[in-house]
Amino acid sequence: MQHFDSDYMEGAHPLILERLIRTNMEKTPGYGTDEYCETARRKIREACGCPEAEVHFLVGGTQTNATLITAMLRPYEGVVSAATGHINMHEAGAVEAGGHKVLALPAHEGKLDAEEVDRYVTSFYEDPSWDHMVAPGMVYISHPTEYGTLYTLTELEALSAVCRKHHIPLFLDGARLGYGLAAHGTDVTLEAIASLCDVFYIGGTKVGTLFGEAVVIPRPGLIRQLDTIVKQRGVLLAKGRLLGLQFDTLFTDGLYVEIARHAIKMADRIVACLEEKGYTFYVRPQSNQLFVVLENQRLEALSENVSLGVWEKPDAGHTVVRIATSWATREEDVDELLSLL
Amino acid sequence: MQHFDSDYMEGAHPLILERLIRTNMEKTPGYGTDEYCETARRKIREACGCPEAEVHFLVGGTQTNATLITAMLRPYEGVVSAATGHINMHEAGAVEAGGHKVLALPAHEGKLDAEEVDRYVTSFYEDPSWDHMVAPGMVYISHPTEYGTLYTLTELEALSAVCRKHHIPLFLDGARLGYGLAAHGTDVTLEAIASLCDVFYIGGTKVGTLFGEAVVIPRPGLIRQLDTIVKQRGVLLAKGRLLGLQFDTLFTDGLYVEIARHAIKMADRIVACLEEKGYTFYVRPQSNQLFVVLENQRLEALSENVSLGVWEKPDAGHTVVRIATSWATREEDVDELLSLL
Amino acid sequence: MQHFDSDYMEGAHPLILERLIRTNMEKTPGYGTDEYCETARRKIREACGCPEAEVHFLVGGTQTNATLITAMLRPYEGVVSAATGHINMHEAGAVEAGGHKVLALPAHEGKLDAEEVDRYVTSFYEDPSWDHMVAPGMVYISHPTEYGTLYTLTELEALSAVCRKHHIPLFLDGARLGYGLAAHGTDVTLEAIASLCDVFYIGGTKVGTLFGEAVVIPRPGLIRQLDTIVKQRGVLLAKGRLLGLQFDTLFTDGLYVEIARHAIKMADRIVACLEEKGYTFYVRPQSNQLFVVLENQRLEALSENVSLGVWEKPDAGHTVVRIATSWATREEDVDELLSLL
Amino acid sequence: MQHFDSDYMEGAHPLILERLIRTNMEKTPGYGTDEYCETARRKIREACGCPEAEVHFLVGGTQTNATLITAMLRPYEGVVSAATGHINMHEAGAVEAGGHKVLALPAHEGKLDAEEVDRYVTSFYEDPSWDHMVAPGMVYISHPTEYGTLYTLTELEALSAVCRKHHIPLFLDGARLGYGLAAHGTDVTLEAIASLCDVFYIGGTKVGTLFGEAVVIPRPGLIRQLDTIVKQRGVLLAKGRLLGLQFDTLFTDGLYVEIARHAIKMADRIVACLEEKGYTFYVRPQSNQLFVVLENQRLEALSENVSLGVWEKPDAGHTVVRIATSWATREEDVDELLSLL
Repeated sequence: MQHFDSDYMEGAHPLILERLIRTNMEKTPGYGTDEYCETARRKIREACGCPEAEVHFLVGGTQTNATLITAMLRPYEGVVSAATGHINMHEAGAVEAGGHKVLALPAHEGKLDAEEVDRYVTSFYEDPSWDHMVAPGMVYISHPTEYGTLYTLTELEALSAVCRKHHIPLFLDGARLGYGLAAHGTDVTLEAIASLCDVFYIGGTKVGTLFGEAVVIPRPGLIRQLDTIVKQRGVLLAKGRLLGLQFDTLFTDGLYVEIARHAIKMADRIVACLEEKGYTFYVRPQSNQLFVVLENQRLEALSENVSLGVWEKPDAGHTVVRIATSWATREEDVDELLSLL
Repeated sequence: MQHFDSDYMEGAHPLILERLIRTNMEKTPGYGTDEYCETARRKIREACGCPEAEVHFLVGGTQTNATLITAMLRPYEGVVSAATGHINMHEAGAVEAGGHKVLALPAHEGKLDAEEVDRYVTSFYEDPSWDHMVAPGMVYISHPTEYGTLYTLTELEALSAVCRKHHIPLFLDGARLGYGLAAHGTDVTLEAIASLCDVFYIGGTKVGTLFGEAVVIPRPGLIRQLDTIVKQRGVLLAKGRLLGLQFDTLFTDGLYVEIARHAIKMADRIVACLEEKGYTFYVRPQSNQLFVVLENQRLEALSENVSLGVWEKPDAGHTVVRIATSWATREEDVDELLSLL
Repeated sequence: MQHFDSDYMEGAHPLILERLIRTNMEKTPGYGTDEYCETARRKIREACGCPEAEVHFLVGGTQTNATLITAMLRPYEGVVSAATGHINMHEAGAVEAGGHKVLALPAHEGKLDAEEVDRYVTSFYEDPSWDHMVAPGMVYISHPTEYGTLYTLTELEALSAVCRKHHIPLFLDGARLGYGLAAHGTDVTLEAIASLCDVFYIGGTKVGTLFGEAVVIPRPGLIRQLDTIVKQRGVLLAKGRLLGLQFDTLFTDGLYVEIARHAIKMADRIVACLEEKGYTFYVRPQSNQLFVVLENQRLEALSENVSLGVWEKPDAGHTVVRIATSWATREEDVDELLSLL
Repeated sequence: MQHFDSDYMEGAHPLILERLIRTNMEKTPGYGTDEYCETARRKIREACGCPEAEVHFLVGGTQTNATLITAMLRPYEGVVSAATGHINMHEAGAVEAGGHKVLALPAHEGKLDAEEVDRYVTSFYEDPSWDHMVAPGMVYISHPTEYGTLYTLTELEALSAVCRKHHIPLFLDGARLGYGLAAHGTDVTLEAIASLCDVFYIGGTKVGTLFGEAVVIPRPGLIRQLDTIVKQRGVLLAKGRLLGLQFDTLFTDGLYVEIARHAIKMADRIVACLEEKGYTFYVRPQSNQLFVVLENQRLEALSENVSLGVWEKPDAGHTVVRIATSWATREEDVDELLSLL
């Protein structure tokens, strides 16, 4: 049985495991105050070209989204997101549980359109009842998106400009950021993200770590007392060393993007095969997640040998499935998948 | 200057004021435990044909919506509403501030379609990721809706059946209920609402009182310790007598529907005139709120002599305005409005 | 049967009722944007000696406390209060429901001690784990307190100085402020409160209105978008005129303090009688609330003819009761109470 | 430099690391649905003598406390805790951030007294204003407590009986449960806890794992849809396998209590030395945390060579420090500590 359901099925990159073992009996202070966190922070700041940046480590994506969003919004504000955004769909209402509305705008292959955001915010304040409505207090995007698509640098610049025009922060969910940075033809770099966003995170869970997301706040001071807020939400890891050490490893000698590139290569092979066989893509493949429209019978047949992510049903006869590769995907598993396709 | 902006610009019906004056120096216990509240409850139960119903008095619509919705939902649930529902648009995110998502479905002239609700709930539980999503925990409707439209008895029965099939409560926001009950040709009665909904309220603020909404829970025990929840939200009126006395008056000798009927008559005259003059209705008029599409220049001209509710802008050249009548609308003011139109 | 249970059993001062009647059919815009609110604001600013102050009108005390406290605190902060403070005891956990801890300090006849507050805040930041604890983000006091006691000007200045030293706002709950201003020998004036507090409110519900509390923010801008927050909490009264008009009346020709003085006079008579008869006060009487220790049998006997507030049971044989007078207390009712005592 | 600050400074037990390595490239489904979680659940149920129990895995203590408490309480309820309880002191207000008050009762060496809890709950409902107050909705205890003390079986039975009498659940925070089970002379077993508590957790973070707490609900169904609530709070670990595998290891061949016993042995040696040297204990030592009163100068001298947990300052000249041993404490480190003492 082959598994291409998601990109978080395996453990961590061997180099990370090795360091976990080597440092296992070291005694380090808790809650992210140890030396490994410190060096990881330094390396991440360097990779982002942001010597001043604040870097915080959290455990998973949903907690990072909810913590940052609720920490940044004022009580009367909501967060603008593509309707397909993870916070709007698959986080069990975490943002609302924190007291805020997700202001969903149309998604274009998972992406927000800068002009639409601009129009939305502008017309919001033109509504005579705006002060009885939820004000757009920040913009949330994911890169790559939930559909594996990528913003271009131009698109990102436009979104950033709209946010700055309206004085609302731009937040980038980078749960799969590595795969975005390693994608073909992208002109979006870590430095660009750091200069265009007010806060973002570099995903580890799906790109090489056992768990962990590194939050970067390029211009420090955006959120007061963030560590206490993180503690209050119950997501401050006691043994913070585990996070520091994993990110220190990923940001040594460019490991993060290097292992992400492997996922892209594996995806390339699958895309080539799918194209050759005439499969229909639901969304044009851009990173490590491929969305394919399958006839239900075809899916049923495949399911005997391979497990895929079942997404949506565009009509009664078809299903959209997700094929996800990762840093850990083995060549031979791809071989077998190709033979099954 | 004439005012047809909304139906809550004046004070209270004279009979209510008179009783307020007469009872002003009586000493009554607080928080809704007085005799006036008791008799008002009895009269409302009778009017609803529900001798067992719980009746609670709150001050305004937004607080009633937010209090009941958050009291009924479990942490992982949201409330299904038409996208145009008051809770989704004009309550400043009160439901989300209470921790819950508004699950917005398409509005049909402000109304939810029972079949669409059924499909939504059914397909929700078919989604393999449903347990990472916000479950539909109740259904919110308004009657009349925010666009002045009315459910038919058949439509209401269908919605109620869908809710009972899925074991989720149906909540009816009756901020303007009187105008719905007094409308032409409606087959929806207070008894029907009480038998089809799990909780609803009878609006006073817009139909004759200074303020106040009477919440009816036909089958008692739906919400445990509701009075404490109301107190916790800060919306338990100290001098509860004021609420009891107002509703006691409205539910004596059918005053509530009688005064609502006046608003409908006044609306009838305006509708007749608008139709004759060839105005375009944005939504077919059904109760005391009329939505009319005006050319912007026409609106500007009118605005010198009459103040209307500015709603939305369907295109660059037009504006949708609301003309609202109420129990307090004077014949001579309508005369003048007609002459202006 | 006589009632001295509380100071919110009757309706409103006759002058207020009269104006309600006279203006009943006027059409005014909603939500506090009308002319009556405007003039009331102007008169309150004047009475406070604060020409720049923001003035907002809410309906009741609990909602005012919860709205202001949650609007002012950051997520990681709590509110310092005397353990006996209304927010800590009798608001059904409204502050916690809004996400914040009440940091209870010892009460001295209902009052906070400035030095203790100073020590508390200072030692908080000396604790090595302070960033895993709830930071003192503001100070809440009531004046008069829940035990009818009053701060002296010196005490209030000391509290204000401590708050400013630590850069946390001082909030004064003035649900019974009139009775505090009218009390014998007090040196605390409305101007003093406005200069020493960052936010406070002037209670109407217990001092002459049907309902209503006037929030004063001496230095405007302390809370961004407060009206939207008030709307979100469901406590923005649709017919705001009712609030404006009541406070306009109270702040015309000094009516507010004048009617409060009557309550003090009535309390004086009762105190004199209680002292003469050798009753034991639980707390030294200072305003319109008198706390008396009664033998249980004595209370039982009295209860046949007079209803009092039952407070606490210091031991098995005694009960502390509250006797409350108000602007509406009648001489003849006091006569009868005295004869019963 | 020696470190005896806390019991979560090192990584995981070698057997756990070994299994992490061995299973690292296995592909397992996410969110706790994998086989390792399943076998861990089975072993924990067995150890608890509860074949029906629900077992859930979370990452850390604060998140487990906040998630379970907010999931169990109704909106108008709070949680009873010793004033020194972790939820009341060192979780940054997580319970309040979830909307609930911590109802703090006096702590007796960190423990609640069953009779005091009974009196508190009983007198709560005797207060005539109880419905304007926060109702005691559950009881929280920790075992061992924050001061290393232990409930006896009799004490635990009494607390359980009080909770059942009042129909409120008893929740035991077992962040250090292993050390409690391995302590000398304790008569509290895992089976006893499972039969007396309604929900509890078995701490991993401080007893052998990298992270992780195993929640046990002996009578399933207490909390509806807990997994979704866990997801909503952002604390559902994507790679749930990591939790299952760690607890599967700890509950194989009695490893959990065995490694805890080592910490007790190390503590025994330190206690013997402290007693011999005439040190003063702040609390009588019962498990792996020792609280000692030091003169400030003595502490300063010691601090050059050993790092201890600084707790509180009973007076100007003394400091209470915590010496914590753990499963990972080395004999030679204890030797050195003893020589320093």
